[in-house]
Amino acid sequence: MMKQEIPYKIYLEESEMPTKWYNVRADMKNKPAPLLNPQTLKPMTFDELKQVFCDELVKQELDDTNAYIDIPEEILNFYKMYRPAPLVRAYCLEEKLQTPAKIYYKFEGNNTSGSHKLNSAIAQAYYAKKQGLHGVTTETGAGQWGTALSMACSYFGLDCKVFMVKVSYEQKPFRREVMRTYGAQVTPSPSLSTEVGKRILEAHPGTTGSLGCAISEAVETAVSTPGYRYVLGSVLSQVLLHQSIIGLETKSALDKYGITPDIIIGCAGGGSNLGGLISPFMGEVLRGEKKYQFIAVEPASCPSLTRGKFAYDFCDTGMVCPLAKMYTLGSNFIPSANHAGGLRYHGMSSVLSQLYEDGLMEARAVEQTAVFEAAEQFARIEGILPAPESSHAIRVAIDEALKCKETGEEKTIVFGLTGTGYFDMVAYERFHNGEMTDYIPTDADLQEGFDGIPKQPE
Amino acid sequence: MMKQEIPYKIYLEESEMPTKWYNVRADMKNKPAPLLNPQTLKPMTFDELKQVFCDELVKQELDDTNAYIDIPEEILNFYKMYRPAPLVRAYCLEEKLQTPAKIYYKFEGNNTSGSHKLNSAIAQAYYAKKQGLHGVTTETGAGQWGTALSMACSYFGLDCKVFMVKVSYEQKPFRREVMRTYGAQVTPSPSLSTEVGKRILEAHPGTTGSLGCAISEAVETAVSTPGYRYVLGSVLSQVLLHQSIIGLETKSALDKYGITPDIIIGCAGGGSNLGGLISPFMGEVLRGEKKYQFIAVEPASCPSLTRGKFAYDFCDTGMVCPLAKMYTLGSNFIPSANHAGGLRYHGMSSVLSQLYEDGLMEARAVEQTAVFEAAEQFARIEGILPAPESSHAIRVAIDEALKCKETGEEKTIVFGLTGTGYFDMVAYERFHNGEMTDYIPTDADLQEGFDGIPKQPE
Repeated sequence: MMKQEIPYKIYLEESEMPTKWYNVRADMKNKPAPLLNPQTLKPMTFDELKQVFCDELVKQELDDTNAYIDIPEEILNFYKMYRPAPLVRAYCLEEKLQTPAKIYYKFEGNNTSGSHKLNSAIAQAYYAKKQGLHGVTTETGAGQWGTALSMACSYFGLDCKVFMVKVSYEQKPFRREVMRTYGAQVTPSPSLSTEVGKRILEAHPGTTGSLGCAISEAVETAVSTPGYRYVLGSVLSQVLLHQSIIGLETKSALDKYGITPDIIIGCAGGGSNLGGLISPFMGEVLRGEKKYQFIAVEPASCPSLTRGKFAYDFCDTGMVCPLAKMYTLGSNFIPSANHAGGLRYHGMSSVLSQLYEDGLMEARAVEQTAVFEAAEQFARIEGILPAPESSHAIRVAIDEALKCKETGEEKTIVFGLTGTGYFDMVAYERFHNGEMTDYIPTDADLQEGFDGIPKQPE
Repeated sequence: MMKQEIPYKIYLEESEMPTKWYNVRADMKNKPAPLLNPQTLKPMTFDELKQVFCDELVKQELDDTNAYIDIPEEILNFYKMYRPAPLVRAYCLEEKLQTPAKIYYKFEGNNTSGSHKLNSAIAQAYYAKKQGLHGVTTETGAGQWGTALSMACSYFGLDCKVFMVKVSYEQKPFRREVMRTYGAQVTPSPSLSTEVGKRILEAHPGTTGSLGCAISEAVETAVSTPGYRYVLGSVLSQVLLHQSIIGLETKSALDKYGITPDIIIGCAGGGSNLGGLISPFMGEVLRGEKKYQFIAVEPASCPSLTRGKFAYDFCDTGMVCPLAKMYTLGSNFIPSANHAGGLRYHGMSSVLSQLYEDGLMEARAVEQTAVFEAAEQFARIEGILPAPESSHAIRVAIDEALKCKETGEEKTIVFGLTGTGYFDMVAYERFHNGEMTDYIPTDADLQEGFDGIPKQPE
């Protein structure tokens, strides 16, 4: 019966699409701690931040009071090319699991960037263009963010310089070619084109790079090139703001059919997807209107929420960025070499870190072979080949659905399916060949990263 | 104003999805010629064909009188996981081209197989399962069909053996891994696992294979393995029947907004996408209700419609398949090595061949660098990175839109965007590096293939 009532895919009408982003910080009693100048340890001012970021984005970064921010028409029009994203009822998965739970997923992979990253990329490119800039710089690891930004820049006719973590650049030549299709200039990082790159290469010849190092190079290039600014695909509060489109659409789709979720699950690397997905629901909780169980899922090999410290830390390896208060493994932390895919950042969005600290959200760490088992199971049943990152959320959604099978509870589970795994087949191949391994860092392994966390401001 | 009236993407409601396929043969005055037994040169009977194909699919293959055929509920449910496919108004492309033309494309790439092939794969897997079979065999070239069939078989719990043209197997390891994710057994062709493969390897050691050769191996394996049948992703009339879902959805979406197309464009290899897209519109023409301009677009390097012969020919290299009357370049024809992507089959659907012979459809051959130029332009403007095959249709759609710019005509152009190019980045890389070349076979080149066309039956 329900099968007829609720379609397999709930698509909002174009007229039902959100026209404002939601800023969860406005409803937080304990605001996320401000970014600090690493020299003065004073909060970063608008004037300091605008050296690095576009003016309008700095305003958004600093705004923790306005709950709703208009989405400019140009961005809305771009959103209409690939959004609304469907909210899918996983009927087939439910049947296969024989669970009384009802499972929904918000699928953000129906665009060429292959993930939700495009939601913020287009916003950041728009504001850069509006400011009359010539181009932007960024870093990319697994390649989703770089691809998304390339697409966005191509649309607005902006130059785009991407520093791609060297190991990814070499292992994922196709990601690089997609970026080139959109006209981006892609440089393997660390490179000799920046001072910080040269320093890192001198200290660690033969290094295959890291996200923190690529960030340092991208920031240096932005501040030293006239008409350029730096943009970032996750962690920052402005990014969570743009990604709130995910949660707003999800909420509208659920409301349309009178569905109230019990559990909302998302994978968490820097926090852009999870933050975007849960924001409007968290807003209801913060305003005392509703209760939900939120679960952040992270890799056991990069456990910033479950095993990190809540502290002010550097956002990048080169220590050129502001200090952010967040759950962190230390800016020198690099996940072990066997770790596949993204979710490898040492820190976590300040917004999510504060919500977690305040007990408003849970976190779970999962191991990667269990994640790929869930990924393959999901692909075979629901058709979509998921990204390794997204599969962390699938793992926990399946686990929760199986718990419901035991208890008989008819919980409604919503999870974020952030993207597709078409450029991650090397990892899938390792999994098929039985060559994939798990790795949980020891306390001693983690201590090295913690030692790099700077002295905390008073 | 129009911008507000017609959304960027027209999605049908689930309740508006077609529940019957449309069989264009029912409305054709000149029916496509029957398949012939290569020994007796008599039309293949049900009993002969059922050795190779599932019973129900043979019925569909032989049925040229029933216009509508019910889509079984199990297939409808699978369709609901990734359909309806959006009909997209290419507002951004129109603006960039500064054309008065209105451009729409039916996008079939929003599923993991990355193309429309899944529409027929799920149908063929369903009938195989229903007949109590153990598995199916097939061939794949570029890999889209093999991926689609793997997904479909995995869903119904059928074994799936895919013979993948060796050059693709080696150049596209990721396609292979996607198929493995769905549990398929993938063998590079020619292989030593079949008699025909051994024969071909003996005659041509070091061959990198061809579609015609992989078909022979798949057919041999199907007829020699108990509980197996062979399935094919294009050319056959049953495949065009299943693919009519593309055209039916397109027509419903257009009708919903009162839009009448002037030109309908599709790429043509074996004809599955083009046939499916145009079927319901062609039906209106055949019944004398409407007029449309239909354009089949094929690669200049494999010009079966524009330069082939309309004759009975073998469907495969090993000559184990029935003879089909079609536009053909000869079963020994292999496109030159510089040809990227699919659309490399020597023949063309009998249905489309007959419609073309009767002057109901036009055909154009385009060169591949011009195709990739259109592909890149489209990607940058409309966001979607298209498959090389689909980009043939984009090329001609853009050409037609530019003609409208010159004449001032406000034509409505609809084209089929069959899929995404995420597994074709090697070809894009060659294009970016300026290494892509064009090739138009000389008449002498083509003569070699024509010489292999058998003596025609009386």
